[in-house]
Amino acid sequence: MEPRVSLVTLGVDDLARAKAFYAALGWEGQEVQETVFVQAGPLGIVLWSRAKLAEDSGIVDDDGGGFGGMALAQNVRSRDEVDAIVAAAEAAGASVTRPPSETFYGGYAGVFRDPDGHVWEVAHNPGFTLAEDGALVLPDFG
Amino acid sequence: MEPRVSLVTLGVDDLARAKAFYAALGWEGQEVQETVFVQAGPLGIVLWSRAKLAEDSGIVDDDGGGFGGMALAQNVRSRDEVDAIVAAAEAAGASVTRPPSETFYGGYAGVFRDPDGHVWEVAHNPGFTLAEDGALVLPDFG
Repeated sequence: MEPRVSLVTLGVDDLARAKAFYAALGWEGQEVQETVFVQAGPLGIVLWSRAKLAEDSGIVDDDGGGFGGMALAQNVRSRDEVDAIVAAAEAAGASVTRPPSETFYGGYAGVFRDPDGHVWEVAHNPGFTLAEDGALVLPDFG
Repeated sequence: MEPRVSLVTLGVDDLARAKAFYAALGWEGQEVQETVFVQAGPLGIVLWSRAKLAEDSGIVDDDGGGFGGMALAQNVRSRDEVDAIVAAAEAAGASVTRPPSETFYGGYAGVFRDPDGHVWEVAHNPGFTLAEDGALVLPDFG
């Protein structure tokens, strides 16, 4: 198994609401068969019914909306961008769980949950290289 | 906010167990400050304490390990690869929730949950282009 993520599927309770939320942030997708596909650089973000996602995955949805122990992050190029994105997300209906602030690693980041509770950190981390095309290059920690 | 995912953080209960699981699949990471960073093409996969992830995100971990409504997928180049990866994951301690089988979209896929319950689909989908470098290119559904 190569280290690769091809799709991130966000289970949602209300597809129209989720689509509108991400569209408000500038993420335009294609809707097909009650599913929204957004091309996000080299991977796809998928918005799909949470119930269908659970059923399709062969698992029981045993918490009904809680924190699943997974978080996504978007790294950006400046602190101003962190502030702007978190503000836009809040205006679009996100719940800001950690307002943008200094981080222990010398960066600046904020965290919000989307209308379905999915966790996004928006971070400016001078220690992580963000390539021209948006790719994140981890440093050599050794 | 550009459509981009920079990091996917998987909250785990036992970092050594999680690190060993992903290493068994061929994902070698760097461990620094009780965190494992894996370069996965243009993004980073991070293994980190689930409790710390919740605290750092400013949220209450209100389900204690259930399905959080988010799933990751890795698309691969053949059906054999789907079978091999799902078998390797099971041997390394994953729980297979949907054995590899035909899908409604004409592909072939299986689903497993890693030792911390995170959901991975491994799929061969002839309708989604997988570029030479592993990037997934969504089709024009219109």
